[in-house]
Amino acid sequence: MVMIPKEINIGKNVTIKESVSIGNNVTIEDNVYIDDGCIIRDNVTIKKNSTIGARCILGEYLVDFYENHTEQNHPLTIGENALIRSETIIYGNNEIGDHFQTGHRVTIREGAKIGDHVRIGTLSDIQGHCEIGNYVNMHSNVHIGQKSIIKDYVWIFPYVVLTNDPTPPSENLVGVIIESFAIISTGSIILPGVHIGEDALIGAGAIVNKDVENEKVVVGNPAKPISDVRKIKNKVTGESIYPWRYTFDRGMPWEGEGYTSWHEKCTNQHQESE
Amino acid sequence: MVMIPKEINIGKNVTIKESVSIGNNVTIEDNVYIDDGCIIRDNVTIKKNSTIGARCILGEYLVDFYENHTEQNHPLTIGENALIRSETIIYGNNEIGDHFQTGHRVTIREGAKIGDHVRIGTLSDIQGHCEIGNYVNMHSNVHIGQKSIIKDYVWIFPYVVLTNDPTPPSENLVGVIIESFAIISTGSIILPGVHIGEDALIGAGAIVNKDVENEKVVVGNPAKPISDVRKIKNKVTGESIYPWRYTFDRGMPWEGEGYTSWHEKCTNQHQESE
Amino acid sequence: MVMIPKEINIGKNVTIKESVSIGNNVTIEDNVYIDDGCIIRDNVTIKKNSTIGARCILGEYLVDFYENHTEQNHPLTIGENALIRSETIIYGNNEIGDHFQTGHRVTIREGAKIGDHVRIGTLSDIQGHCEIGNYVNMHSNVHIGQKSIIKDYVWIFPYVVLTNDPTPPSENLVGVIIESFAIISTGSIILPGVHIGEDALIGAGAIVNKDVENEKVVVGNPAKPISDVRKIKNKVTGESIYPWRYTFDRGMPWEGEGYTSWHEKCTNQHQESE
Repeated sequence: MVMIPKEINIGKNVTIKESVSIGNNVTIEDNVYIDDGCIIRDNVTIKKNSTIGARCILGEYLVDFYENHTEQNHPLTIGENALIRSETIIYGNNEIGDHFQTGHRVTIREGAKIGDHVRIGTLSDIQGHCEIGNYVNMHSNVHIGQKSIIKDYVWIFPYVVLTNDPTPPSENLVGVIIESFAIISTGSIILPGVHIGEDALIGAGAIVNKDVENEKVVVGNPAKPISDVRKIKNKVTGESIYPWRYTFDRGMPWEGEGYTSWHEKCTNQHQESE
Repeated sequence: MVMIPKEINIGKNVTIKESVSIGNNVTIEDNVYIDDGCIIRDNVTIKKNSTIGARCILGEYLVDFYENHTEQNHPLTIGENALIRSETIIYGNNEIGDHFQTGHRVTIREGAKIGDHVRIGTLSDIQGHCEIGNYVNMHSNVHIGQKSIIKDYVWIFPYVVLTNDPTPPSENLVGVIIESFAIISTGSIILPGVHIGEDALIGAGAIVNKDVENEKVVVGNPAKPISDVRKIKNKVTGESIYPWRYTFDRGMPWEGEGYTSWHEKCTNQHQESE
Repeated sequence: MVMIPKEINIGKNVTIKESVSIGNNVTIEDNVYIDDGCIIRDNVTIKKNSTIGARCILGEYLVDFYENHTEQNHPLTIGENALIRSETIIYGNNEIGDHFQTGHRVTIREGAKIGDHVRIGTLSDIQGHCEIGNYVNMHSNVHIGQKSIIKDYVWIFPYVVLTNDPTPPSENLVGVIIESFAIISTGSIILPGVHIGEDALIGAGAIVNKDVENEKVVVGNPAKPISDVRKIKNKVTGESIYPWRYTFDRGMPWEGEGYTSWHEKCTNQHQESE
């Protein structure tokens, strides 16, 4: 084994508070803030304007470290403008997009591909080897099993679990697929290989063992379709609430503009560039 | 912005172990014990006879800190005789009563109003902007959504979630209200705006989408009333178990005396003082 | 109270990284690796070839510490070849077998008797005063109530809770008993005193309020038997999957050899030694 010389690239206006440990081959771009007691292991890149809360561990060891206590080359890149709250642990072999936000004590294992503008709540546990799109919002204490695929603009609420083993224990994991704009409510469990359609709404505490079609509402144990999302009306105004992209915009790219107008612009730009 | 001069008031017989970081305008009263590695941010008051376990973060930053990495004035007060176990995080803008106890790794966000003699178990996640009465007991891994109102003497068991968004994602949060002496069993989910009556008993794993009357027992997904608490008998003695205030007293103000006698005394004192 | 003189026994080839705090009467055997920021309290023994991840707390205080901030004699022994990942907390008064593995931020309270080859996933919360056999695998975020008895080769998946109080709140705890080879799937809750038979399969999200016979499959809220494990076939090969000991061997003592052959050898050895 060749020892890599310790190389740390630190940009302008970087703040590193006390008792921070930094490994080899680490890049910290401009305007990054790293709070007390963080451990940055080898081969970590933190892009500009990011904040790392107290006692985070970035580039945490994969299992191969424990064989002889030597760190292998498992890089971690955290995109620009991240806000990672205190005591979050992110393994090496991860690539995370821009505008990433976490709550406290999030754990992200290796092999997670995470898009831009993703938010992951306190205590959530991303088991790695999964795909998470753009503008995905996970609330507290969400568990994402390996092989899960989560498309853009998905909402996942507290204590949801995406499972992956149809016949536990086994070696044949089959991930859940969640299409864009779907909403997975508190405490629901999605069984291995289940496909959740676009704009579907999974009710709180649902145990979902069958595919869910686009725009369907399912509830219960086992979950059964009870309605279409378009039938859910605002009790005061009588207007439709779903698909939610037309009624909610906080933190979305169409914020302040509305989905329709924004989407039209996107489509036009796309056509012009063709 | 005016820099506040660092001012720390430390009482008699205070123990501060190693690697503790203390911010500006912090008051630590007599007989307080602070274990290794705690981070006490600005504007924190810890009242007398309290113990803070290893690596707690008190007065954790609110989101406004991250704009320019400057701490705003968000005070935290922890009452007398607290026992906060290791790695608990409590945000600023919180007022916590006396005799507070936590397990490990509890998270309490800003705007929680917490009474006296409250206990919150390991890994519980209090989302802030909520009201928690006196003598409330929460076991491990409880999630309290914003706008929840929990009255006195309520018991909440592991993996319970109090939700708040009737049409997620939305900006119109509606909290759960739990009346005094109610018992919320393991793994139940209370849907937004649901009102749980006094002495009600929510069964394990219940998904509660409707109000529950006083003294009712509800179970199932969705939860349905199946009995009255007074019908639940001790299998050996045949005596009623509920309302539990007559059969259980550990940690309660009527400990060793019985609820009836204690309550009579309280009533008399109240009348005398009128 | 007599002060015990600080006595630390450290074996050969031990690595202790930075900011590690070590108490009195601690034994660290050969080839142990202790990462940054661990707190080892008094009376802890770490047996040879073990790795302790960053910021673990070993021998954490029991409640008697908080009376006068003096540590009582509550020893913790961790067996050989342990891999304890970062930020795990293990109380004193615990005896843990060899080849123990944890994920991150596991909490183990006092009085747990834990066998060999046990693995406990990230965020799991072992409440102590319980028995866990050999080759037990718990995934993330499992909650084991006091008085639980878990036999050998049991699998417990994320967000499972073993409860213990039939009439909460009360002082009359009754633990769950899980027989060997049983499988408890994600998010199920086992009610107090329930007995789960050998090779039983508890479905995801099941609320189990009655005993489950050997080899039965139960699902639902409340859980009901729907099948026998032997009827579950591999969709491709048509072969039986359960009892799983015949189709799965990773990490098991029969790995690479098969259960039947291994079991025969064990039986022969046992007879020879009689």
